[in-house]
Amino acid sequence: MERLPRVVVVGAGFAGLAAARALAGRPIDVAIVDQHNFHTFEPLLYEVATAGLEPTDVAYPVRTIFGREPNIAFRYGKVGGIDLDARSVSLEDGTRLDYDYLVVATGATAGFFGIEGAARHTRPLYTLADARRLRNQLLGVLEEADAHPERFDGGPSFVVVGGGPTGVEMAGALVELLSVSVRSDRLRIDPARTRIVLLDVADHLLTAFRSAAGGYAAATLRQRGVDIRLGQRVTEVTANGVHLADGSVIRADVVVWAAGITVEGTLAASLPAPTTGGGRVEVGADLSLASHREVFVVGDAAAAPLGHGKEGVTPQLAQGAIQSGRHAGQQILRRVAGQPATPFSYRDKGIMATIGRRAAVAQLPRVPVIGGTLGWLAWLGLHLVYLIGFRNRLLVLLNWSWRYFNWPSGPRLIVEDVPAVTPR
Amino acid sequence: MERLPRVVVVGAGFAGLAAARALAGRPIDVAIVDQHNFHTFEPLLYEVATAGLEPTDVAYPVRTIFGREPNIAFRYGKVGGIDLDARSVSLEDGTRLDYDYLVVATGATAGFFGIEGAARHTRPLYTLADARRLRNQLLGVLEEADAHPERFDGGPSFVVVGGGPTGVEMAGALVELLSVSVRSDRLRIDPARTRIVLLDVADHLLTAFRSAAGGYAAATLRQRGVDIRLGQRVTEVTANGVHLADGSVIRADVVVWAAGITVEGTLAASLPAPTTGGGRVEVGADLSLASHREVFVVGDAAAAPLGHGKEGVTPQLAQGAIQSGRHAGQQILRRVAGQPATPFSYRDKGIMATIGRRAAVAQLPRVPVIGGTLGWLAWLGLHLVYLIGFRNRLLVLLNWSWRYFNWPSGPRLIVEDVPAVTPR
Repeated sequence: MERLPRVVVVGAGFAGLAAARALAGRPIDVAIVDQHNFHTFEPLLYEVATAGLEPTDVAYPVRTIFGREPNIAFRYGKVGGIDLDARSVSLEDGTRLDYDYLVVATGATAGFFGIEGAARHTRPLYTLADARRLRNQLLGVLEEADAHPERFDGGPSFVVVGGGPTGVEMAGALVELLSVSVRSDRLRIDPARTRIVLLDVADHLLTAFRSAAGGYAAATLRQRGVDIRLGQRVTEVTANGVHLADGSVIRADVVVWAAGITVEGTLAASLPAPTTGGGRVEVGADLSLASHREVFVVGDAAAAPLGHGKEGVTPQLAQGAIQSGRHAGQQILRRVAGQPATPFSYRDKGIMATIGRRAAVAQLPRVPVIGGTLGWLAWLGLHLVYLIGFRNRLLVLLNWSWRYFNWPSGPRLIVEDVPAVTPR
Repeated sequence: MERLPRVVVVGAGFAGLAAARALAGRPIDVAIVDQHNFHTFEPLLYEVATAGLEPTDVAYPVRTIFGREPNIAFRYGKVGGIDLDARSVSLEDGTRLDYDYLVVATGATAGFFGIEGAARHTRPLYTLADARRLRNQLLGVLEEADAHPERFDGGPSFVVVGGGPTGVEMAGALVELLSVSVRSDRLRIDPARTRIVLLDVADHLLTAFRSAAGGYAAATLRQRGVDIRLGQRVTEVTANGVHLADGSVIRADVVVWAAGITVEGTLAASLPAPTTGGGRVEVGADLSLASHREVFVVGDAAAAPLGHGKEGVTPQLAQGAIQSGRHAGQQILRRVAGQPATPFSYRDKGIMATIGRRAAVAQLPRVPVIGGTLGWLAWLGLHLVYLIGFRNRLLVLLNWSWRYFNWPSGPRLIVEDVPAVTPR
């Protein structure tokens, strides 16, 4: 009997999972590879970083996700390289995974735009490890400020670079972390003298939203004590602070980098294909490479055309990743069935961002911007729906209820190092 | 106005927390110091190690525990030394904490009895970090066995050294981890060819229990596939296996060290006081040092006399730690009030151990040994009661229900390194 078509999916983020799901239960051998044995729900990483949620709450094992899909196998390991001619992916543990179709969903990493010191002295927020490192640093600084107030001129200073959804959500969550630390943990810190600064080079926040959203977010954050500085370009970051183009320096104990992401330096960037801004790989209408039609690039790594005859590329958001991943999976099914390719088209389902407790902005198609508690409930509901696994939904709802009802929120644990063991 | 008496409690384990609690709400300045910002519920570490529970479930922030006790302050940091003459504790960050009374509750560490290679090639299970390291190694080995079966002669081999409660619970939990990994995660491992070996030098398990308990535990574990070897003395541990006194070698991919603990090398051991077996510090009837009556040593670190005129010392269990810690706190209150000291006396509330799913042994005073589901329910109930924080109880109950009803149990996450930041 002739063997089944083999598909290798690299990356278990939103895009990779969606691609594999589209192939579930079909006569196809699917192997999904990731360097972590879990999927990370990235939209909530800022909650982990500010101890509102636990790492467990936003991570879900890939094996559990596909536990009932016998044609989808998980491989835990790092990809060493791709041999496009031999059509095989090699893992660092020496394994070779041959494929007939390859889906590259390796995502992006923090983009520092060559700003001096940014990579070294700031904390990005793109992986679970990023979030845990940032949490340990935030909680560590708060403990140090409690033990040695004299070391902090006035109080600790937290700077968030980037006024997009991540930056706005981070700033809002920092306000909450501070109030919980002082109110419930009795840290001897004067909130009035603790600074949370939110910087952006644009003249308003949430530029991807309609301006009403940015205005609302700015007003809400300012009212909660966040020092918002717009039209500010960062020129350098040092161990002590952030230097701006106007020559001023903001002292910072922690700098959160939410200014952008890049595909450069990732596995996808090594593919023989032209790239657009941010190193995103150019793909055809069906999301495959012009040079290798059997290779699809999806999610943040790809510059997927919007389709519908619209100009531009799909935004690097969860919904873009899910839609492009699913499309790639469907195209593989069509190819196997000998059907012609169909073009990808991005469907905007709207964007949302929380601004901390009981406030969010939700911008849905053909609906005015929703703010306040209503927006927050919409945001909460949507994220609960998209979280993988009933258990996680329950845990997150539990944690949020805690916070909402003002019980001491999720445990603010500072958990030390332990090595992960990947197959040798 | 004359200042309040100052008490420093070193260690936020069961003993340290109990000592601080006894002083809550009294006209005394209490500072409790720990190198972690959380209390660890040690009896459930084996569940974390086998991915049945998450680290969060068994850890609780010290600040949250005393959030409503204004006279108890938490200090996050490592103790560098104790100046008994100056009556001050110095932290590694340079802080000096002066005291009128000192409570040393620094616990113990794994004891390797000088067995060659044991410290290097085995995993103890005494801290949250130990549990997370062990989990990562266990899950890593299972992933490797799935990816490279040829590297495992037959199948992976797990060896547990020590047939006390920790070893028995570990072996039982390993059986469950294996069955979940194969059943839910579809790891390509043959449970029949995977070995779980439980070693002890004694001729029966659970020597601290009445013999009926050990017999029941052995029968249950054997019936679940655990290879129990009694009367076996370990002479050496290498990267590949465990060497026994009879010259035989057991190949091992992971060796769990549950053979004992020691106080040697800990802060308590540096006190000017005689020590008993395992480096436990000899204390007077009121748990203070003969040479420094203002210094109390409690918990695993102390050789607290049983009292009631009974010979022997308090066992190194949670209940001994709680009772001795509370007693020290009460003695401090009496001293401050000018009342005479009262002798400590240990009250045995019984001992328990799970043997995995729906089986446990509970030995209560004046009651025959309870086994099976009844024992398991007793064990479960007791541990839920002693867990700190409603949130943790709920989470643990949730996780256990998951397992009990055969849903995929707690996420089997392999989470990588991130550094903890302690005050500089």
